[in-house]
Amino acid sequence: MTTLTLRTPYLLFVGSETEPIYAKTAAGLAKWSPEACMGQLSLPGGTIDLGLENHDVPSAARAGAKSLVIGTSAVGGAIPSDWMPTLLSALSEGMDIVAGVHTKLNDIPELVSAAMESGAKLVDVRVPPKDIPVGTGKKRTGNRLLTVGTDCALGKKYTALAISRRMVERGVDADFRASGQTGIMIAGNGIPIDAVVADFLSGAAEMISPDAAPGHWDIIEGQGSLFHPGYSSVSTGLLIGSQPDAFVVCTEALRTHIKGWPDFELPSIQAVIDRTIDLARVVNPNIRCVGISVNTSPLPEHEREAYLENLSKLYGLPTMDPLVSGVDEVIDRALAL
Amino acid sequence: MTTLTLRTPYLLFVGSETEPIYAKTAAGLAKWSPEACMGQLSLPGGTIDLGLENHDVPSAARAGAKSLVIGTSAVGGAIPSDWMPTLLSALSEGMDIVAGVHTKLNDIPELVSAAMESGAKLVDVRVPPKDIPVGTGKKRTGNRLLTVGTDCALGKKYTALAISRRMVERGVDADFRASGQTGIMIAGNGIPIDAVVADFLSGAAEMISPDAAPGHWDIIEGQGSLFHPGYSSVSTGLLIGSQPDAFVVCTEALRTHIKGWPDFELPSIQAVIDRTIDLARVVNPNIRCVGISVNTSPLPEHEREAYLENLSKLYGLPTMDPLVSGVDEVIDRALAL
Repeated sequence: MTTLTLRTPYLLFVGSETEPIYAKTAAGLAKWSPEACMGQLSLPGGTIDLGLENHDVPSAARAGAKSLVIGTSAVGGAIPSDWMPTLLSALSEGMDIVAGVHTKLNDIPELVSAAMESGAKLVDVRVPPKDIPVGTGKKRTGNRLLTVGTDCALGKKYTALAISRRMVERGVDADFRASGQTGIMIAGNGIPIDAVVADFLSGAAEMISPDAAPGHWDIIEGQGSLFHPGYSSVSTGLLIGSQPDAFVVCTEALRTHIKGWPDFELPSIQAVIDRTIDLARVVNPNIRCVGISVNTSPLPEHEREAYLENLSKLYGLPTMDPLVSGVDEVIDRALAL
Repeated sequence: MTTLTLRTPYLLFVGSETEPIYAKTAAGLAKWSPEACMGQLSLPGGTIDLGLENHDVPSAARAGAKSLVIGTSAVGGAIPSDWMPTLLSALSEGMDIVAGVHTKLNDIPELVSAAMESGAKLVDVRVPPKDIPVGTGKKRTGNRLLTVGTDCALGKKYTALAISRRMVERGVDADFRASGQTGIMIAGNGIPIDAVVADFLSGAAEMISPDAAPGHWDIIEGQGSLFHPGYSSVSTGLLIGSQPDAFVVCTEALRTHIKGWPDFELPSIQAVIDRTIDLARVVNPNIRCVGISVNTSPLPEHEREAYLENLSKLYGLPTMDPLVSGVDEVIDRALAL
């Protein structure tokens, strides 16, 4: 599908980061691909602990690390100059460097020449493949479930991962399909949908979940929100190209407004369900909502169960927090379609 | 707004084209910016006549042409090798070359070095400006009218041009705002919205129609259709970023299916009105449809008037073919908002 090939195991590099929110990529990899992560590396001053073995570059190389993954994103997505000795050392040890930050590794001449010398690769995960076609809207074989959201950053990737992993445990032929940088690092493939040129958005989404066997399920990582003042077109293209049979609405308990856009109220779950069906019907008239996924972390623990139960009654849909409760009911609902 | 500067007058170059459909850019310029077009140039075998004076490159240069505009797009958007002598000759005469085809002038080394030698510029109209921000959704001052469509290629640009030109004739402070390559050549500025990276789509649309005086109207060229299986995300981003006060639905008489997507029925005008309002309400709760614009060219001439009258009664909206009848009623409706 894409020319992207990621070599594992990964050494997760978190620079001198101290805020977990900026180390989401590393945390996501450590949680969802622990078998692919052989260690962590902080610079002096860094306090991020992913629960992995600490390594410097030479010891990681000796222990078999094949790629150094940049697991944090500084504000602005730059590559700070104090990272360079570590990155150059990794290249000289033959390790690839994998990054999803805004600045492209391949735009930094010092890294490019070091990589050419050692034969290691600079993998910019945020660069979409060339020659993406315009979306056709043609029905593909196999089954698809897309996670959609009331907003950004509230669990669409985690929900898709939890569902796909549990499906596989239950013997269903299923794949997690990544549309964002961390998801791509976890899956080892995918397309960074938000970096695709507008004309080819739904075409890229079609590439993410190609034709598959009749019993197969692609569980597709959603992006943004159809109601988002900045990103709704990304969500629209991903929805139309995914032509999902089933979707799960992801939200966060107590969130009232679009994060970072304080003038915009969060849409209701019902509004998200209605618009998702309305827009996607043109490519899949049988699309159905099969569940609600709630990030309940803002709630006191003793309130979570009642909160989820209330939502479930209100909407008549399986409702869960994928990090707390299981996703079996949602899977049952999807498989019954 | 953008770094784009187009130098007029233009020499319109139509290669050896024989099909008017592939010379739409040249035809649009000749129709809407005749004062900017000093002549036309065909290669042997070409039959396109725009009604302009015929020139070769030296005579055009002597007559004051400042840019050679590539006015046709071959299938695939390439620059055929038999165009090169003409293009190199134009550069050596100090004329800029302006193109909106898929292939970038600035990717052709022979042209780049000839331009450097003569000091002329290679202007790729399809390249959006750098550093477009994410859309904010913040309400801007002034008034905006967007043309939307049931499909691509049925008159959104012509309708916007007709309305903006007539507004100016009537003494309204108005600008045509371009979102596509031909529109940009006509306006002399704008952003090719379909070439913008997905994350910045609505941000680009916000740049196209910036804050303006209270009585000012921006008449924005629409793109694609909210119901299009390939391009709906482009239309969504342009709609959200434009936050229009008014919109006009453009359609073509007798068209039944999305052009090039024979499995997709054309949406009804009512469906387009409803979805446009539904999506745009989040950025402008007062958005209103002020008219319907129909390309009636597929109808016999004696049926046109009755066709437009019927539609007007059915929807209770001013309905016109901007190339046949006037756009005053639509303007009255917009100004009355």
